Formats: sequence, C-alpha cells, structure tokens
Amino acid sequence: MAPCVSLLLPVFAILATLPVIRSAHTFFPRPSYDQSLARQPDASKPKIPYKAHYFPQVLDHYTFQPKSSKIFYQKYLVNSHYWRRGAPIFVYTGNEGDIEWFASNTGFLLDIAPKFRALLVFIEHRFYGESMPFGNKSYKSAETLGYLNSQQALADFAILIRSLKHNLSSEASPVVVFGGSYGGSELKIPSQLLMLNGCSKWPSFLLSLSVLAAWFRLKYPHIAIGALASSAPILQFDDITPWSSFYDTVSQDFKEASLNCYEVIKGSWAELEALSAQKEGLTELSRTFRACQFAFDTSMRIWPSMQNLQKKIPKCPKINLLDPFFRDLHSLDSVWDWLWSAFVYTAMVNYPTEANFMMPLPAYPVQAMCKIIDGFPSGASKIISVFAAASLYYNYSRAEKCFKLEHGPDTHGLHGWDWQACTEMVMPMSCSQESMFPPSGFSYKEFAEDCMKTFGAKPRPHWITTEFGGKRIDRVLKRSGGNIIFSNGMQDPWSRGGVLKNISSTIIALVTEKGAHHVDFRFATKDDPEWLKELRRQEVEIIQGWIDQYYADLKRLNNE
Amino acid sequence: MAPCVSLLLPVFAILATLPVIRSAHTFFPRPSYDQSLARQPDASKPKIPYKAHYFPQVLDHYTFQPKSSKIFYQKYLVNSHYWRRGAPIFVYTGNEGDIEWFASNTGFLLDIAPKFRALLVFIEHRFYGESMPFGNKSYKSAETLGYLNSQQALADFAILIRSLKHNLSSEASPVVVFGGSYGGSELKIPSQLLMLNGCSKWPSFLLSLSVLAAWFRLKYPHIAIGALASSAPILQFDDITPWSSFYDTVSQDFKEASLNCYEVIKGSWAELEALSAQKEGLTELSRTFRACQFAFDTSMRIWPSMQNLQKKIPKCPKINLLDPFFRDLHSLDSVWDWLWSAFVYTAMVNYPTEANFMMPLPAYPVQAMCKIIDGFPSGASKIISVFAAASLYYNYSRAEKCFKLEHGPDTHGLHGWDWQACTEMVMPMSCSQESMFPPSGFSYKEFAEDCMKTFGAKPRPHWITTEFGGKRIDRVLKRSGGNIIFSNGMQDPWSRGGVLKNISSTIIALVTEKGAHHVDFRFATKDDPEWLKELRRQEVEIIQGWIDQYYADLKRLNNE
Repeated sequence: MAPCVSLLLPVFAILATLPVIRSAHTFFPRPSYDQSLARQPDASKPKIPYKAHYFPQVLDHYTFQPKSSKIFYQKYLVNSHYWRRGAPIFVYTGNEGDIEWFASNTGFLLDIAPKFRALLVFIEHRFYGESMPFGNKSYKSAETLGYLNSQQALADFAILIRSLKHNLSSEASPVVVFGGSYGGSELKIPSQLLMLNGCSKWPSFLLSLSVLAAWFRLKYPHIAIGALASSAPILQFDDITPWSSFYDTVSQDFKEASLNCYEVIKGSWAELEALSAQKEGLTELSRTFRACQFAFDTSMRIWPSMQNLQKKIPKCPKINLLDPFFRDLHSLDSVWDWLWSAFVYTAMVNYPTEANFMMPLPAYPVQAMCKIIDGFPSGASKIISVFAAASLYYNYSRAEKCFKLEHGPDTHGLHGWDWQACTEMVMPMSCSQESMFPPSGFSYKEFAEDCMKTFGAKPRPHWITTEFGGKRIDRVLKRSGGNIIFSNGMQDPWSRGGVLKNISSTIIALVTEKGAHHVDFRFATKDDPEWLKELRRQEVEIIQGWIDQYYADLKRLNNE
Repeated sequence: MAPCVSLLLPVFAILATLPVIRSAHTFFPRPSYDQSLARQPDASKPKIPYKAHYFPQVLDHYTFQPKSSKIFYQKYLVNSHYWRRGAPIFVYTGNEGDIEWFASNTGFLLDIAPKFRALLVFIEHRFYGESMPFGNKSYKSAETLGYLNSQQALADFAILIRSLKHNLSSEASPVVVFGGSYGGSELKIPSQLLMLNGCSKWPSFLLSLSVLAAWFRLKYPHIAIGALASSAPILQFDDITPWSSFYDTVSQDFKEASLNCYEVIKGSWAELEALSAQKEGLTELSRTFRACQFAFDTSMRIWPSMQNLQKKIPKCPKINLLDPFFRDLHSLDSVWDWLWSAFVYTAMVNYPTEANFMMPLPAYPVQAMCKIIDGFPSGASKIISVFAAASLYYNYSRAEKCFKLEHGPDTHGLHGWDWQACTEMVMPMSCSQESMFPPSGFSYKEFAEDCMKTFGAKPRPHWITTEFGGKRIDRVLKRSGGNIIFSNGMQDPWSRGGVLKNISSTIIALVTEKGAHHVDFRFATKDDPEWLKELRRQEVEIIQGWIDQYYADLKRLNNE
C-alpha cells in the first residue's frame, strides 16, 4: 500500500495541471460579482488579529474521578488591542469547529471593540479545531466522545473566563457572551448518518451551537452579565417547534423569490429519481453534475489535520488515487445531498450583500439562484435547471473544475457533531407536503437504532429541554433570567426555532424580515442596508445598557 | 472470627440488663421537660404518611458513554392525599441522608399541603439512604463516588420531576422546591477526616445541602417556579463569607445567653489539655465523661444498613465486643469532638420550643446549657461544667448510661459527605480569637493533602462558585433569577453563609433574630412564638403569590 502515500502529492500536481474544462453557460453561470471576494487558495486559513493561547482544561467537570481530572489544552484567541483593565470582556462561545474560522467570520466584535474598549476572546469548543482532549484519537469511540457535550463545554467556558479574569487582575470586568453559528467550511456527514435527522436521505445542517451563548447566560449569570445569541435555535428541540419548520422556511425563501423557481426545485427530485433508475442513468448524472473524484478535502478543518490523515493513508482500502478525474457516481444520494446542501445553505446565508461565509456568493443569493432557474425556458429539464442553480453556490468563484459529490471513506474517525446529534442535540426534522423537498417524517426509533449502530450510544431526546428548558420559554424566562438578545433573520431556516418575541424588558427578540443566519455578526460593509445597520445599532445600544447598569451597580455597592 | 457475629445480640442484651448507673446531679442534669418528647426506641424509623417509590435514574448525566448510562434506583416518597391533577407539586430536594428522616422532620410541608392541595414529593439524594448506585459498594472508591456530586443530583431531580409530571398527566402543575438541611441523626466523620475542614481537630458539620433547592431554582427555572431554601449557606464557599463566621456565631449564641457560660467553655479546652497530659489523665477523663465502648451505632442511617454491616462483622479486626462497658479513651480528641458537637448542634437547633431534631432538647437549649454552667459555683472545674452542659444535649431523655465518645473502625466504607467535602463542597472554616473554641486557621494545602491521601481526589475549591455563583450575589441575581425565599435564623451558625438581605422583589430574605436551623420547616406546635408563626405566614403568602402568578400566566398564554 505504500504507493498510495507516495502518489498523494503527484496526483494533486496532476490535478493542478489539467486543462481547465470550460462549462456551458447553463452549467457554470457567471453573474456579475467582485472577483476579489472569490475564495482564494489561502483563504482556508484566514489571517485574523488574534493571538492563540492554550488553557489547561479539566476533561470531566461532573464526575470527580481521578481519570476525569485529566487535563487537555483548550485553544482560545485574544485581541487586547482596545482593552484596558476593568473594561468589558466580550467572549465568543465557540461552537462546532475551528475557532479561527469563527473569529474570521465574526467581524462584528472587532467592529464594536473600540467603542467598548473591549477585550475580545474566542474560546474553542472542546473536541473541535485544535482542542482535542485525546489528540487524534478524540473521535475514536464513545469512550472518548462521551466528554463531548454542551454541559461540559459550558463549564469549560466558565472556568476559562474566571481564570482569565483572575490572571488579568480584572475580576470586575463585565463579561458579555456572543454566540453565532458555525462559521465556515462546508461540513459533510458520513454516509451512514445521512438518515439520522429526518427528511430521510438528507443530512441535518450543522449550525446550531449558537445556542451556547444563550444557555451560558441562563446557567452562568454570575459569569456573564448578558448574551447576544444570534440565530440561536434554542427551541428546535423535542416537540417545541414543528419539525417541518426548518425545511418549510427554506422552501418559503425560494417561493417568495419566485414561484416557478420553487416549483422547478420541487419537481426536480422526481426527475432525478427517474433518470437514475434508467440504464446508464447514473453515468449521465455524473457527467451532468461534473462529478469528480473525492480524494482529500483540505477544507475539512474539523477533522484531524492533513498530517494525521496521511498517517492513515496506507490503510486506504477504497481510495484509488489513480482513478480518472471524472468518475461515475455510486448512487443518486450524493446528487440529492449536493443539491440539498446548496439550497439549504443558500437560504441560510441569503445575505443582502456579497459575502464569503459558507461559500463566496452574491447579494441575496436565493434570488440570484431563482433568476438562473427562471432564465430557463418553460419545459426545460428541471435537472439541468437545478444543477445550474446549485452551481451558483458551489462555483460562484469559477474556481471549480469538477464537483466532489461523493465523500471518501471515513478515514477520519467519527464526526464530533454526529456524536452530539446522536446523544444530546436531537433535533427532529421532517419535510412537509408544502416544502420543496420530498416529503418525509422523522422516526425516533430508526434514529435511535442508527445511533446505537454507529456509536453504541442511545440518544436522550428530552435531555436538552430538561437541562436547558425551552418549553413555554416565555412564561419561564419572564420570571427568571435577563439580559439576553435573541437575534433572528426570518430568511434563516433556523429562525423558526429561535425566540421571536420579547419575553421581558431584558430578554429581547430582534427580528429582521430580510435577515439571514447571524447576518449581524458579519463585518459591517458600505453596502449594508439600513435595516441591518439599525439591527446592529440596537444590539450595541442594549449591550451598552447592560454594561452601564453593571458599572452603576458596582459603584453603588462599593459605596454601601 | 465467627463468634464476633454470634456475640452481637447477646452483648446488646447484656447492656440492656446492666443496672442503671445513676449519675450525680452535675453530671446528668434533669431540667423539667415532657417525657413524651424523649427519644423512644422506635423513633429511629419514624412513621410517615408517604409512600415510597423507586425511579430508574441514569448514573451519569454529563458523559454520554455507554457505561455512564447505567441505571440505578432512586427512592422518592409521595403523599397525594390532598392533591388533584393540575394542582401544585411541592418537592423536597433531598440532601445528605435517608429521605424518610427528612420527611419526618419537615412537617411544614404536611401542614401547608391542604391549603395548596399540593402533591408532596421527597426525593432522596443519590448515594444516601437507599439510593445507592452501586449497592453496598457505592462508597468503595473514587471510581464509584465520582458520581456523587451536586450537579448530578440536581439533574436527577430535574429528570425525576419531569417524568413524574408526565406520568401523572399533570404537566401544567407548578412545582415549588423546598430544601432544608440535614434532618436527623448525628453524623460522625471517620477520624482520618477530622482535620479536613479547619479548626484543626474538629469535624465540619454536615448540614449544608439545603443549598440544593436554591441552586435548583437558579439552574432549572423551567422546572421549578420557585424555591424556599431554609438555612441554605450558599455563600459559605470559597472566600465569600469570613471563614470564622460559623464558629463565631456559635460562640455568640452562648455569649448572648451568658458571658460566664461562654468564658467557661472557652477556658475548658486548656483545662482538658492539661489534664490529659497528666499521668492517668485520660483514665480520669474517661470516667468523668462516662465513656463507653463503641460497638454499633444503629442511628448511622446514612451508612449501609445494619444488614450489610453485619455481613462485614466477621472482618472486625479491632472491635472486641467483650470489652468492659466503660473503657479508657485513646486520646483527648474524642472528648473535644464530643463537646464540640454538643455546642455546635445545640446552637444550630436552638429552637423556641421543645424539639427532637438532632436530639431531644428543651426549648432554647443554649440558654438551658448555660443555665447549667452558671449553676456551678465560681471557680468550679470547667471540665465538669462543660460535661454537665453537654450532657443536656446527649442525655436530655436520661436514656443514656454511658457515652460513645469514640468511633469504631470504619467498617462502613467511606462516607458520602466526606467525599463531597473533599471534591466540590469545600467550605473552609477557621476559629477566631473571639470564638469559644481554640483558635485555628484553615490550610488548603493540608486539606488537599488529606483528601488526596483519603480518596485519591483533589479538591476543587473554586468549583462551586464557578458552577453556581455566590460572589456578588446581590448584583448577579438582581438581573437574573427570581422566586426564591432564603430563610435564615440568626441563632443558626450557618446563617452567616446565607442570603440575609432581599436581592430583588422576588428574591427575598426572611431573617428571624431568634430563629435556628430551618425552624420554619418543623411541624407547627401550639407553643410556637409569634415571630415563627409570622415567618411561616410570610412564606405561605409568597409561595401563594408565585402559584397565583403562574396560573394567571398560564391562563393568559392559553388565551393568546
């Protein structure tokens, strides 16, 4: 198997020198956009004005066994440029990925730091990025993954923040926590988990740990004076929010952009199914969708580093790096997944300006996608239409020569989020008749069986609502809790699982009709619409209010 | 070793038939009291109007490993006599002992249940009473004891309450949690742990898990609409409350009763030390203090049952059941411990009426003790004076013929509370120059070394304040939290670690100058003073307000 390794770099070299295959207009639409926004080769590791630190963290906060006292190193980033002792500390409660990626996609904090003279701290979530308690064996089994859950992560934040304040001799600094959602690269789920979260063959979308900031304020009000939770679906659990709401919202976004667009997408699944059932159907689909060999996706930063991956290459039983550049698909699933991801993520990031969050995209990309679909003559192949639309998502920068529709074997170990979804973060989802996706339900039984098979773990579907609440949240938080902003953009499919109405005078819902997934957390740009500027202005004003109140309390208590 | 077992009952029989040794007046004071209050032989297992149930509980809520999904059976008691579906549920969050004992000492809930038509539920704390996750091996080592901590216990309560409401089809019932302190038998700490909590040779006093009700409301506001935390020292951790406050308050109670009494006790320790250093000093002390052989203390209900204990008897290497009835003490420590416990517990239960909580005692027992001391002529032996005073505590019922000053070997396994004190519940205590106890400091280093030696576990002295807060509590809870009553009696040494001032309009401190340790939780009696009736009246009124508000919210939301 040694050649398998030695051929790795040469194969990449071959790929790089292949002639560029120019696509037809319908396959590779080229809307007008600023080339500077396109993904650059080095964009995978953006430069950010933060210094990395590593905190010795306790593995298990909730059993006091000797083995659980094991220490691992938790990464956190600090920017102290604007700060002076005693001034506020703004903490981003890291979620399911590399913390540097979050930092680079949360420009809002850098924008507002000077006004508050704030220290900025981005704490990486355990079991993601570099914060691996068991190194490259962290995803090995339920024995190691067991320590990956939100309660342990919240305790990590609490301990780290307290220690940081102590070390800075700034224990009186007010702390405000910020949580947005997953900030970066496209996440893929191992094929065996595709059925886990309802809508049968389709993956759940991994953008939900923004809930941590809200939960942190609720559980640790003595550590954070307030929280801005942007696009936090804290009501997406159990039976609080209708299970079809997520995909219904995606569908509504497209329907609002164009009824024809919605109908073409809705009709495309049957056409795809019919074609794939034909002889040579998959071969035709492979050509149409320009499927290329999956080898190594360096953007998968949540998995072990390339170096670790290479160690595993000798075992690669199914990867043949000498496979032809284009290859036949094994099943229709990967095409569905590819399209599905494009539509869902585009709805999530339906931002009012050009942006490069999940992928480089133009302003209002849902509208742009629908414009492509609407550009086809009536009666055109729905398959070609949806491919062209999805290409906007995957190839707005025109850098792609083929598309990696299929994943390689899971040589990386099990995926952190899948573990969380299979244990605590159970978010049932279904597709209604009204959605543009094929209708399907959610079977807890099947879900639990899959989880048991995959991880040997049984999901606890009611655990999150027992531990953090959510049911009748307005009534509960009216009599406890305070100083939380729940910000949601109604374009975002996660918004329906968020808090959309004020709960009390200090638990505020800021809702924007045109907003998408934590649009407020992005760097301000000159093209931002008024409603976005106003949203951020309100957030800053409310946070300023918390901080003023904190210092006033402090002064009054010190004088007593 | 078989005779060791077979002799058990005969020896008890011999003890029972020994002629009663009548004490001199100064040794066995007999103040006037109602004989019916004296401890009866069957009082160790009081009859209570509750039905016992057992709930299948998850061992570890915070790691999702297969082994942590182990189930154990958690005991809880229910009285549904006054309840109808939809009416409130009052939950007592069990603390460090047998739940039946708590139930029998929390008559307040039975007194108020008819008014609220409340369901009463007493949930036993894991690792106490019958709720042993690993049976009689539960205290075996840190591997098993690791799961004994307050966070796991709170999650137990949350899960059990939710399940109970579901099973009762009464999910809309408001839940109010109640927490008092340890409700019963005298707790002993294995000798190796005597130095753990400061004041050098003396044990900490184990009455602190009343904090659970307050913490539960703070962490689980979605499950409990309010909490009445009686005598909850939630500020006794870390450096929030001066470490000497506990013993200073005990001392103050005695000083207020009589300056002479305080001075006699304060001077007695040196006299005891001087006597014990003399030849035959310990023999003299043994006679003076009527030390009897410790064999088996059936009142130790927090340890494994007698049945389990008997299984271990064959191994009893140090117990000789044929020892003489009186025996020489091995060191002065046990005398100090015996006196110390008498003074501290008496201060804690300095109730305004006769009561049988820790021990049967007259009304205002501190004053009664001081009356005994003040009855000695000036210049009398301080040793004899303090023995006479302490006898009020140990022998008010006149049933004791000798006193078990020394503990037997720890055949019971390690003690649950010691584990908690050595890991999370670190409450540093010291004795100041002003206290009536010998001055001493608290050394965290020594404490940690002892814990490591005993359990192989390192204490986390800042964990409780990180997890539950406490520092600057007024400022923190003013902006979050609500619906908590902190009730404290200033006679109670724990009161200084409690919340003694209102924090907000819904976080209320009820303080009584003459109150002792959760006096409000006892059954009402015809002799209760006005201030106690008023305290309970206020509590009922506030709880009624929470419940009215809850139903009003429910009605309003249902109409929306």
